[in-house]
Amino acid sequence: MKPRRAVITLTTDFGAFDYFVGAVKGAILSVNPLAVIADITHEIPPQDIEAAAFTLLASYQTFPAETIHVAVVDPGVGSARRPIVVRTGGQCFVGPDNGIFTYICDREESHEVFHITAEKYFRPSPSSTFHGRDIFAPVAAALSKRVRPEDLGALITDEVRLKNSLNPEVLKNGDIKGRIIHIDRFGNCVTNLTRDLIDPRNPPTLLIKGETIRTFQDFYSSALPNTLFAIWGSAGFLEISINRTSAAKILRAKRGDTVIVRQD
Amino acid sequence: MKPRRAVITLTTDFGAFDYFVGAVKGAILSVNPLAVIADITHEIPPQDIEAAAFTLLASYQTFPAETIHVAVVDPGVGSARRPIVVRTGGQCFVGPDNGIFTYICDREESHEVFHITAEKYFRPSPSSTFHGRDIFAPVAAALSKRVRPEDLGALITDEVRLKNSLNPEVLKNGDIKGRIIHIDRFGNCVTNLTRDLIDPRNPPTLLIKGETIRTFQDFYSSALPNTLFAIWGSAGFLEISINRTSAAKILRAKRGDTVIVRQD
Amino acid sequence: MKPRRAVITLTTDFGAFDYFVGAVKGAILSVNPLAVIADITHEIPPQDIEAAAFTLLASYQTFPAETIHVAVVDPGVGSARRPIVVRTGGQCFVGPDNGIFTYICDREESHEVFHITAEKYFRPSPSSTFHGRDIFAPVAAALSKRVRPEDLGALITDEVRLKNSLNPEVLKNGDIKGRIIHIDRFGNCVTNLTRDLIDPRNPPTLLIKGETIRTFQDFYSSALPNTLFAIWGSAGFLEISINRTSAAKILRAKRGDTVIVRQD
Repeated sequence: MKPRRAVITLTTDFGAFDYFVGAVKGAILSVNPLAVIADITHEIPPQDIEAAAFTLLASYQTFPAETIHVAVVDPGVGSARRPIVVRTGGQCFVGPDNGIFTYICDREESHEVFHITAEKYFRPSPSSTFHGRDIFAPVAAALSKRVRPEDLGALITDEVRLKNSLNPEVLKNGDIKGRIIHIDRFGNCVTNLTRDLIDPRNPPTLLIKGETIRTFQDFYSSALPNTLFAIWGSAGFLEISINRTSAAKILRAKRGDTVIVRQD
Repeated sequence: MKPRRAVITLTTDFGAFDYFVGAVKGAILSVNPLAVIADITHEIPPQDIEAAAFTLLASYQTFPAETIHVAVVDPGVGSARRPIVVRTGGQCFVGPDNGIFTYICDREESHEVFHITAEKYFRPSPSSTFHGRDIFAPVAAALSKRVRPEDLGALITDEVRLKNSLNPEVLKNGDIKGRIIHIDRFGNCVTNLTRDLIDPRNPPTLLIKGETIRTFQDFYSSALPNTLFAIWGSAGFLEISINRTSAAKILRAKRGDTVIVRQD
Repeated sequence: MKPRRAVITLTTDFGAFDYFVGAVKGAILSVNPLAVIADITHEIPPQDIEAAAFTLLASYQTFPAETIHVAVVDPGVGSARRPIVVRTGGQCFVGPDNGIFTYICDREESHEVFHITAEKYFRPSPSSTFHGRDIFAPVAAALSKRVRPEDLGALITDEVRLKNSLNPEVLKNGDIKGRIIHIDRFGNCVTNLTRDLIDPRNPPTLLIKGETIRTFQDFYSSALPNTLFAIWGSAGFLEISINRTSAAKILRAKRGDTVIVRQD
């Protein structure tokens, strides 16, 4: 397979401080010197698989077709957990089989998962502690040279999923039970509620942490100070925000907290 | 317009932790897969427009002709503030009309500003909260494919400027009144004083925060310990420094503080 | 010399917050617009030459042949300390002559060091405070265009070395005296002990900070909680670790601390 120009993104919990990021980049460029490496983030909180799952979900669709995404948040490295590649939405995702691609698979209509076993695409003598460098990076680089997922190992259907799916639940009384799936740097609470669930002509009431929110805003700076409001965030989800301060702090909210949508 | 190799830099307050950086990179590469993305920094303090203005000023001239710089520090996103592109010095600058390009325009002899309105270069259904991804990134990518600023919208002359220009003031008594425009990671206080203002054969006295500084050094390690000195810094400005410790801390100095230059 | 595609890595203590990284990237791309810049890290602790030496050591071998590594941790910038380029292992290393390449030279069988004096490859009027931008970046870009180290200055043999070499010491009683050369983000203590020193069929006892370690693990998650163990880390060195917590904290260990290997 010939080197060719292709985008490979990196989403990891390696941090900026260590040599891990450099080692992964070198391992990619050694296999495909024409790869275009795009750092998404290396600041996923250590071993926080859900945070990586959200970050991938919120960014993958802006990348071109055939982009290859490498995700390394991997507390089980070296154990029996499988290395996998997921093909979906015209892109590929390479990483550990620990649920990190759950939200991507929940959003796409269909997906295929392959258990990576073709050692000829690994670095020689792969370590048991750094699959990011020794397995995921060279496999992603191989995919960027048009190796197919089918060439890497067998199709599987029992991949690991996160406990909570991306999708909200409709309760018996008609309420929708969503949850906070991410808190961003500014303290905005990103929920898993999407536009198709909510009637724009009849904005609902939101219940969260004992607070009731009835105000929807179109942009952050239009809101009154110190007032909680809902806004359609840039990741496509409803967010709970306060202009210029942290809604998460004011609400003492954390990821996983329930948000009820009540349509009057 | 055909994809072509061109450098696009990114200067933002997105932080390394979130998905914003990844989304912007994807949005650029989707429009021009041959773009070379160079991160300047994503650690501008949140909503600190002056810090971004300085960072751009201090780095843009090292980049090749035709580089496109994207700057996203954007507290007014979604409001009436305009998206603009500035053409000056053989390069283009894309971002919000909030003063972020003031220092670039102050330094260059001339510049042109265009109000970006050509929606065909935006991402479909642009959000009101993330113009970095939905407007600035695709517009920068379009520029990198030789779309001209004129094609993006009308020339304007009433662009927003920072309250303080880059240039020091000459007082009636002949003193020069400068100010601290940046404090770097090592605590060096970068002023807006440039070489043309100061006679190298007759070094002046500097007055800052009640301290008097008469020593000029050629490099940091030549200075005595615990002694304030002045040095021509790498951004082309006079800096107030102390070898191996933070001058800003010792002086309790902050950005905006006055520095008087008195030529005896 | 023509622009050509070549990888240039960056390892610095510039931090993510300032304009330094952007200025260096611009200076490289202005000389060789086809250079592929790979950030290894900009978060080396300020002026910590040993940390940079380790980071380079742990990542350089994953990069392709002919990669050029720029390392800028440079407390002596502007003083008499020389700028150098080291050629070894099919790659080049550009930076200050302060020991930063010691570990690379210790690992490779041979190396050549050149004192960079050819000012025609510098930026015009180089500053005395930012050789990263004004000397190392353009020189690295020149190397990437096939300028040879010989063209940059004279071969030297008296380059500065770190006080401690990379290699452990064999004591009179047969013990091996190693030391901690790095503590990573997860608190794993990386020693300078390599596989060739230790018989895998007869695992030794390790003595560190008053603790005795007899357990070797193959991967992190196989260990019991709260129990110190040794593991062959991904950088090729023996590491002292605890599963899911910081071994360095528990041991109150710091870089430079002694580790004794006792073969029974």
